[in-house]
Amino acid sequence: MTKNSIIALLTDFGYEDAYVASMKGVILNIAPHATIIDITHNISPQNIDSAAYILWSSYKYFPKGTIFVCVVDPGVGSHRKILGVKTNKYVFLAPDNGLMKYVLASEKMLSVVSVENTRYFLPSISSTFHGRDIFAPVAAHLVCGVTFSSLGKGITPLTQAEHFLEVKRRGSYSGKVIHVDRFGNIITNFKLDARKFRKLTLSIKKTVLHQFHTTYVEAKSNSPFLIVGSSGLLEVSVKNGSASSLLKPTPLQPVHLKLE
Amino acid sequence: MTKNSIIALLTDFGYEDAYVASMKGVILNIAPHATIIDITHNISPQNIDSAAYILWSSYKYFPKGTIFVCVVDPGVGSHRKILGVKTNKYVFLAPDNGLMKYVLASEKMLSVVSVENTRYFLPSISSTFHGRDIFAPVAAHLVCGVTFSSLGKGITPLTQAEHFLEVKRRGSYSGKVIHVDRFGNIITNFKLDARKFRKLTLSIKKTVLHQFHTTYVEAKSNSPFLIVGSSGLLEVSVKNGSASSLLKPTPLQPVHLKLE
Amino acid sequence: MTKNSIIALLTDFGYEDAYVASMKGVILNIAPHATIIDITHNISPQNIDSAAYILWSSYKYFPKGTIFVCVVDPGVGSHRKILGVKTNKYVFLAPDNGLMKYVLASEKMLSVVSVENTRYFLPSISSTFHGRDIFAPVAAHLVCGVTFSSLGKGITPLTQAEHFLEVKRRGSYSGKVIHVDRFGNIITNFKLDARKFRKLTLSIKKTVLHQFHTTYVEAKSNSPFLIVGSSGLLEVSVKNGSASSLLKPTPLQPVHLKLE
Repeated sequence: MTKNSIIALLTDFGYEDAYVASMKGVILNIAPHATIIDITHNISPQNIDSAAYILWSSYKYFPKGTIFVCVVDPGVGSHRKILGVKTNKYVFLAPDNGLMKYVLASEKMLSVVSVENTRYFLPSISSTFHGRDIFAPVAAHLVCGVTFSSLGKGITPLTQAEHFLEVKRRGSYSGKVIHVDRFGNIITNFKLDARKFRKLTLSIKKTVLHQFHTTYVEAKSNSPFLIVGSSGLLEVSVKNGSASSLLKPTPLQPVHLKLE
Repeated sequence: MTKNSIIALLTDFGYEDAYVASMKGVILNIAPHATIIDITHNISPQNIDSAAYILWSSYKYFPKGTIFVCVVDPGVGSHRKILGVKTNKYVFLAPDNGLMKYVLASEKMLSVVSVENTRYFLPSISSTFHGRDIFAPVAAHLVCGVTFSSLGKGITPLTQAEHFLEVKRRGSYSGKVIHVDRFGNIITNFKLDARKFRKLTLSIKKTVLHQFHTTYVEAKSNSPFLIVGSSGLLEVSVKNGSASSLLKPTPLQPVHLKLE
Repeated sequence: MTKNSIIALLTDFGYEDAYVASMKGVILNIAPHATIIDITHNISPQNIDSAAYILWSSYKYFPKGTIFVCVVDPGVGSHRKILGVKTNKYVFLAPDNGLMKYVLASEKMLSVVSVENTRYFLPSISSTFHGRDIFAPVAAHLVCGVTFSSLGKGITPLTQAEHFLEVKRRGSYSGKVIHVDRFGNIITNFKLDARKFRKLTLSIKKTVLHQFHTTYVEAKSNSPFLIVGSSGLLEVSVKNGSASSLLKPTPLQPVHLKLE
């Protein structure tokens, strides 16, 4: 693995408290040369599915050697494991709660450990804030050259790889909403090359959509349409507006796609 | 231009998605030594006017050599151009949609190019996220020493320079609201030295204001007053409260100023 | 003091304006090698009490030599002093308005000065934005090696140290809410080792709570309970919910604790 010193943080700790700053302080105390990048801290509290999508859609743009520290962790203080996952290019630290599900479907795991070596933790471990007391110092020690295998013993994660629905042929498919972004775009788990089909029809709640565009500018304002977004997944958008406000999907809202 | 490695980002991508992180990953992949600074990512979606003000009010505090990457880009995927603007101290990358209007009125342009050299883009370009696929890698290549002129051919921008209304004499003037800040301060496009006048009267919607103060502390609570803000523009404020909540200006709300 | 180049920022300037970016530009202009860390900028406007808690709960995790720049400053432009506080490990810059109250109770002050040496300010000082014009350049000059004592003359701060209520024996105690976090956890100023008591009863408004847990997972959903949080203070939480939405405490809400 090429050495760099980037630690990328993904949490639901928000931007209004001291939680993230405490993690950064801990990291810089151990690894003053670390480069800390925020993926986001605005995952809605305990929303593991959304975090899984956010991580998947950004990790692959980071340099080889980046350490991803992912803390959306409703089970903190329980017996849930903290996974260390090593791939060809990256290291991921995350609770074994599903947060890694899309990454595990995209990456080959070289090694998975249960992060348990207290030597790399803070001396005192709270029962509610492992981000500060375990994740941050472990990531910092990795940046300082601690070997991955010293973090803990190898395990098989409970987290199952979850693949997006790659639809390549005409037919009817059932999927779900996996994220709603800041612009109100509704992101589904359908992955497809839209050019291959004559007609796409997406049903979401009681709305049936068949307008498809490749850019926002060619769409009509205020009217929902289909588009393949920048992560390659099928999205519902409204130009100069919010598809989410209009259609109000629930988390993991079922959707149905017909390809002709 | 003095060399530094600062890339300053200004977008409407928000803090809840992976968009900004993807841009940062792309930058660090190409230019591991870049220093990335967030101006803000909370421009309200597609609000070019507000972005233009935010950029203008902060850029001049940055070190010589800073590269500003500005992506509020409702026309992404259309034929709108991406401007590269070189001034004596800085480089700016922004869509040619007005975002640069206040900077163009303050800075002498040494060179303006249409950013089109795909050599500095990501290999695959989405139609909806040029921040990641074009702006980020181009900025990173500039930090790595690519010459400005290699980005594309010289053009005349469609964006017109827009000057603030510098009012120096008694009289009546028509202006507009250009931004509302976090504290609810309403920022107008009037630029003036308030000490030169005996009396200021600002009309905004049906409210007529003539209380003027030079600090917040000397104002009464809950009552709107006029103040020249930290960017030199006339603002309406409420001490310990929000002028915006009280007066509810629309975007680009017309305002009228009488100077005696 | 060990040298490092970390400047940690804590303000109520938000993430939607150019205020924080202007401060960062000023810092990097003077000290290009500075490492700037955001504690948070989302302190609710002028909420000094919350800022005091946030600062206290995070500062101690930062490396020796860190300079903390704290700007929640409703008195900007008045005769309030700007404190420079030097401790064994850190330097703090903050208005003398109470923001330092919890830190002063935890740290031994080696020296306190009134920051007045205009040599380290920007050339032009606005009456509304000392964060950019005074705090940022002073911090940057400290990182560049300016001596602490050159900032101004020694003073006794008006800010009084405020201790948390360390309760060690059975009895009844009156305290207050000092912060509500992103998850809706209500943080009180009671500091205690819960294992020493058989029963805890907290009264907040008309609600009386005696459920105590050491982790979130062992609690029931939607029902408020007591927990000692990651900063060692007694909190009211709701698993998978918000104690704050349920109990709606006012700022500094009085609370009563009975220990048996």
